[in-house]
Amino acid sequence: MKIKVINPNTTQSMTDKIRAAAEAVAAPATSIVAASPSMGPASIEGHYDEAISVLGVLDEVRRGEDDGCAGYVIACFGDPGLLAAREVARGPVVGIAEAAMHAATFVANQFSIVTTLDRTRDIARRLVHEYGMERRCLSIRATDLSVLDLEIPGGTARKMITEECWRAVKEDRAEAIVLGCAGMADLSVDLGRELGIPVVEGVTTAVKLVETLVSLGLQTSKIGGLAFPLPKSYRGAVEGFAPGR
Amino acid sequence: MKIKVINPNTTQSMTDKIRAAAEAVAAPATSIVAASPSMGPASIEGHYDEAISVLGVLDEVRRGEDDGCAGYVIACFGDPGLLAAREVARGPVVGIAEAAMHAATFVANQFSIVTTLDRTRDIARRLVHEYGMERRCLSIRATDLSVLDLEIPGGTARKMITEECWRAVKEDRAEAIVLGCAGMADLSVDLGRELGIPVVEGVTTAVKLVETLVSLGLQTSKIGGLAFPLPKSYRGAVEGFAPGR
Amino acid sequence: MKIKVINPNTTQSMTDKIRAAAEAVAAPATSIVAASPSMGPASIEGHYDEAISVLGVLDEVRRGEDDGCAGYVIACFGDPGLLAAREVARGPVVGIAEAAMHAATFVANQFSIVTTLDRTRDIARRLVHEYGMERRCLSIRATDLSVLDLEIPGGTARKMITEECWRAVKEDRAEAIVLGCAGMADLSVDLGRELGIPVVEGVTTAVKLVETLVSLGLQTSKIGGLAFPLPKSYRGAVEGFAPGR
Amino acid sequence: MKIKVINPNTTQSMTDKIRAAAEAVAAPATSIVAASPSMGPASIEGHYDEAISVLGVLDEVRRGEDDGCAGYVIACFGDPGLLAAREVARGPVVGIAEAAMHAATFVANQFSIVTTLDRTRDIARRLVHEYGMERRCLSIRATDLSVLDLEIPGGTARKMITEECWRAVKEDRAEAIVLGCAGMADLSVDLGRELGIPVVEGVTTAVKLVETLVSLGLQTSKIGGLAFPLPKSYRGAVEGFAPGR
Amino acid sequence: MKIKVINPNTTQSMTDKIRAAAEAVAAPATSIVAASPSMGPASIEGHYDEAISVLGVLDEVRRGEDDGCAGYVIACFGDPGLLAAREVARGPVVGIAEAAMHAATFVANQFSIVTTLDRTRDIARRLVHEYGMERRCLSIRATDLSVLDLEIPGGTARKMITEECWRAVKEDRAEAIVLGCAGMADLSVDLGRELGIPVVEGVTTAVKLVETLVSLGLQTSKIGGLAFPLPKSYRGAVEGFAPGR
Amino acid sequence: MKIKVINPNTTQSMTDKIRAAAEAVAAPATSIVAASPSMGPASIEGHYDEAISVLGVLDEVRRGEDDGCAGYVIACFGDPGLLAAREVARGPVVGIAEAAMHAATFVANQFSIVTTLDRTRDIARRLVHEYGMERRCLSIRATDLSVLDLEIPGGTARKMITEECWRAVKEDRAEAIVLGCAGMADLSVDLGRELGIPVVEGVTTAVKLVETLVSLGLQTSKIGGLAFPLPKSYRGAVEGFAPGR
Repeated sequence: MKIKVINPNTTQSMTDKIRAAAEAVAAPATSIVAASPSMGPASIEGHYDEAISVLGVLDEVRRGEDDGCAGYVIACFGDPGLLAAREVARGPVVGIAEAAMHAATFVANQFSIVTTLDRTRDIARRLVHEYGMERRCLSIRATDLSVLDLEIPGGTARKMITEECWRAVKEDRAEAIVLGCAGMADLSVDLGRELGIPVVEGVTTAVKLVETLVSLGLQTSKIGGLAFPLPKSYRGAVEGFAPGR
Repeated sequence: MKIKVINPNTTQSMTDKIRAAAEAVAAPATSIVAASPSMGPASIEGHYDEAISVLGVLDEVRRGEDDGCAGYVIACFGDPGLLAAREVARGPVVGIAEAAMHAATFVANQFSIVTTLDRTRDIARRLVHEYGMERRCLSIRATDLSVLDLEIPGGTARKMITEECWRAVKEDRAEAIVLGCAGMADLSVDLGRELGIPVVEGVTTAVKLVETLVSLGLQTSKIGGLAFPLPKSYRGAVEGFAPGR
Repeated sequence: MKIKVINPNTTQSMTDKIRAAAEAVAAPATSIVAASPSMGPASIEGHYDEAISVLGVLDEVRRGEDDGCAGYVIACFGDPGLLAAREVARGPVVGIAEAAMHAATFVANQFSIVTTLDRTRDIARRLVHEYGMERRCLSIRATDLSVLDLEIPGGTARKMITEECWRAVKEDRAEAIVLGCAGMADLSVDLGRELGIPVVEGVTTAVKLVETLVSLGLQTSKIGGLAFPLPKSYRGAVEGFAPGR
Repeated sequence: MKIKVINPNTTQSMTDKIRAAAEAVAAPATSIVAASPSMGPASIEGHYDEAISVLGVLDEVRRGEDDGCAGYVIACFGDPGLLAAREVARGPVVGIAEAAMHAATFVANQFSIVTTLDRTRDIARRLVHEYGMERRCLSIRATDLSVLDLEIPGGTARKMITEECWRAVKEDRAEAIVLGCAGMADLSVDLGRELGIPVVEGVTTAVKLVETLVSLGLQTSKIGGLAFPLPKSYRGAVEGFAPGR
Repeated sequence: MKIKVINPNTTQSMTDKIRAAAEAVAAPATSIVAASPSMGPASIEGHYDEAISVLGVLDEVRRGEDDGCAGYVIACFGDPGLLAAREVARGPVVGIAEAAMHAATFVANQFSIVTTLDRTRDIARRLVHEYGMERRCLSIRATDLSVLDLEIPGGTARKMITEECWRAVKEDRAEAIVLGCAGMADLSVDLGRELGIPVVEGVTTAVKLVETLVSLGLQTSKIGGLAFPLPKSYRGAVEGFAPGR
Repeated sequence: MKIKVINPNTTQSMTDKIRAAAEAVAAPATSIVAASPSMGPASIEGHYDEAISVLGVLDEVRRGEDDGCAGYVIACFGDPGLLAAREVARGPVVGIAEAAMHAATFVANQFSIVTTLDRTRDIARRLVHEYGMERRCLSIRATDLSVLDLEIPGGTARKMITEECWRAVKEDRAEAIVLGCAGMADLSVDLGRELGIPVVEGVTTAVKLVETLVSLGLQTSKIGGLAFPLPKSYRGAVEGFAPGR
């Protein structure tokens, strides 16, 4: 099966890292297509960045449908465009935030999220609520790292994230850590070993969940709130996005 | 003060209706700018339509900032792009769904929402939850009307909406009605008179709320989750949306 | 339109301050009637004070109905007697706590309440819950000020409140402040300027909300839980309050 | 121990019925003082009636304190003045709505409330929420009975209540019934026998709970939100209620 | 009436302490049967201990039914086997955690739980949620005490618990304390005197609640989710537990 | 990897069915061990059956640990003993109810559960709440089928379940179905085809989730509430269950 992993931002090094993480866990029969949209922000660090990024995400899902993709991963911790993507896709679409949070509940009673800039905590907080995780999520901890700081080879990002994870364990009594950015996809194994508790990373988890759903024959429900978009005209720069049929 | 009322879809007759409703309630010192984005769907009837419409909404808010607008109304019952718009705007931004629901709580204990197509109920349901209205909203009732059915002169829309409101009163014991589409902006006065209970319409309510916030000197908080977007590069078709500075 | 702003306590200096704040924001066509009941506590700092104050509040609403008032503001942060007042009134009745909290949600994701004595935090906590604001209200911070300390000219009240607001911003990451006492009605403008974030004050906000509701033709629903009280006999000291008709 | 059972309305036949019910279950060492306030409404059927009744309730609690009462029952299903009464009282104060709902959770997973007029459902709904009973309370069912209909000898009240209980069992799958009016205090034994499930009545339950709390040495906490009212002056008709000390 | 108080662990000294506490508060007409199951863990300090203890608890309830017991107390703060016990019993079954939490709400707005090992906090947290006490419970505070540390005469347990209670009062503003272990049944009176606030202990409270329910004629509902177990065959070591008839 | 799928009841035909379903979806490298405990009820249809079944479940998990199992599935829709099993196991333990509900949220906004006897609805209702699924689960629909009715070849079970699923779609607007019993493990594919929406079955889903967690290196957190049971003595029939080490 072909799974498309969409990095909603346009930073190629991050897409490469995401691809590597996805391929490392994919089943032999799975082929990973990692995509950066042709349009969008260099990084997503707020509601505005996220809202604009959705266009590129949906463009990639639409291409994926033409291309026979069995399912999709949205590889940004805000799960941008998730519901809209589900309307367009036949197969399952899984966001990395929902993937990581749901998976964490199977191995720990309560987890903390460790993320990048403080301003993104509002996004995580809304998702915690949206996914019914209020009683499972102890805290959302920001570091002072921007998303692109995670791309600097030899930078201090790894050290700062590790320290924040330890604070979550000691101060909040976190039983597991959920990593709050797709740019941390290469850190979970080492972090898990160092901390000695589950460190759940969304990209890898979402890939396995899509494999799971596809292998079980579960596709997106087309009754009700996730039915295919109604055919209609769109105007201007987004004309090509019209769900004609 | 100049208030920009943004119809997120591109149907001009609906923008005209919205403008008329807004102007009818605006204070003498308020000037209403009613805008249809140059890009977007003809109507918004699902998560996909809504996600794409956000681009046009944000374009209008950005223009409004250059143009000295004191505040904004997002005139679609899904409040599309609300948080992103708040990041961009200095003044207040109010969605018509939040406006109508909050206002309804001041005049009734419990209300019902009457909206268009069944598939849009999922959007309303999420907003009810997001705005803390679970204990106030008794039901979300769909009619079989598409958004553009509301634009047909002499159509059956008015009759069908009235009947659904009566059902909400009789079957759900609604004490007030919240109208669930900007295309119903011309119906609230007549409906209120016929039903004998408060019928809250979002466009008019949101205009008055923006006036209220501006007159009280309340602008969007720029600390935390609604701070201005960080300057960064955007690529491709959305390049012009980059929050450069 | 005539809006009656009822200070539920009997301290005239506070009523005067409330009147000034209300008049400063009222529309030209609005006439403000500020009233202190003829009966009641000198200040409201607990459930008992509040319960007794309701008699005076309802007395003023009943007089207001005879007097043609279009709407009412209950100017105490516990919103005492709100539902009972709504049963009696034809027009809208808005409490200052609900007014300030709802308005704060339009300009900030999360706010803190700064109030007077620690013991009043229980009242605010219940209202936060009642109004569906649990996810919006970060903290309720008490100062050591009694309500009447706010009436001492040249006192330290202003300084103590300012400091507590700063703590809310720094320790709780408040994006806005809701002032938790009608006696703070003169502080919001200065505080907002100093803190650089929205400082929402209930008296002024409630006046504008009543104007908004009245101008939209929205009156209290008389179906269901807020219908006029049933005619019946009352006995003893409260005999005159009987809802005969 | 002396337990004062306060009927917040002034209808003597109802107070007599309440006294009889209380005495029937009280321990031998308990002496029941059943009181109708000297002031108040003939019956309580809405927020306004309830708000006015609080004055009489608090008057009785204050007298009770002078009189050495060990605890209090507020015998109206709206639990009027509960928190204010707790501030004034040293011993425990228990409302009949909270008593019945808490007790019901010990013998059934989910219950229905059967009450009088439809308009009082709003009061019960708020208490269900206040007491954390949302997941336990299946429905609040009104009959067309006024409170005083329950006082008519040989009336149809008993029959109508029984039928509504059966509907709760059959349509809502209620596992227990909570009777929603102190005027039903004489019905629970017969109803329980007929329905074959627990029928929980508040007056009798509250009396036993007060006995329980007193016998365990549990008095109202005087730290925080239920501390004694602060001494201060009250003015006008309520002057005598001032918590001087 | 005969009330069976079941200590789910097999430590006799603890059962003796529980019996003494129960007898000290029981009404003259009540006879207390305190039982340690013949099978089970020496102490309960986690989900596994608790799950295994349920077998012994149910064995005791089944014997109690044959033995004419009017009601049951499950004397472990995790309320192990509560719902299963209710299926088997005709009369009421009350857990000490639910008893203490419900009782605390009658004398305080908000309480803290003080318990033994940190790992048991997860159990208490789930019960707080299950019983609708989220808004009433401020904190769950662990000491470093094991359950059996409470059985060491002259140990430091009492001192450590007292100190933790004081922290709850000072740091969390607890208005009452709920003791989180049946092994603390002998501490509540002294603690209450020292702290000056209600200290609610579950064993004693549950005994009085069972007396209350029985005296009111309230038995476990046998309609729906607590109906008697269906007759069927059980196999192996638990064969004797089969609900044959 | 070896995954142990534990059927908590002792009916061999059901264990066989569960094994077949598990093997049909397992990855080539996975070996399924399907086990019926040597002790336990023939079927689980209430809290009592479930409580007793836990002993056998834990026995199987303990044996599995000695036997090198990488993870476990608890194949009964009440997820009996889940937390206790997690304390004992190093690898992940997944219940079929949680597996199915979490998976359903990835392909549908809202689902209905279709289960066996009406009395088991209480178990499902508690899990819906425990797993944060209140806003996702529209209804829990019982058929009149006992668990063992599902084992009768050529019986009417399949027809009755199909009809109930259709009712969920038409009356509750379910977008997906969650099958509420491990005995339905053979029905999901056919049902999904007939209904045209996702039909999520717990055994198969849980097997894939355990594979996912193990392949990601995620094991049960051993910090906090799921740490290994403390070594201590157990007495009587359960002596062998003591967590010595």
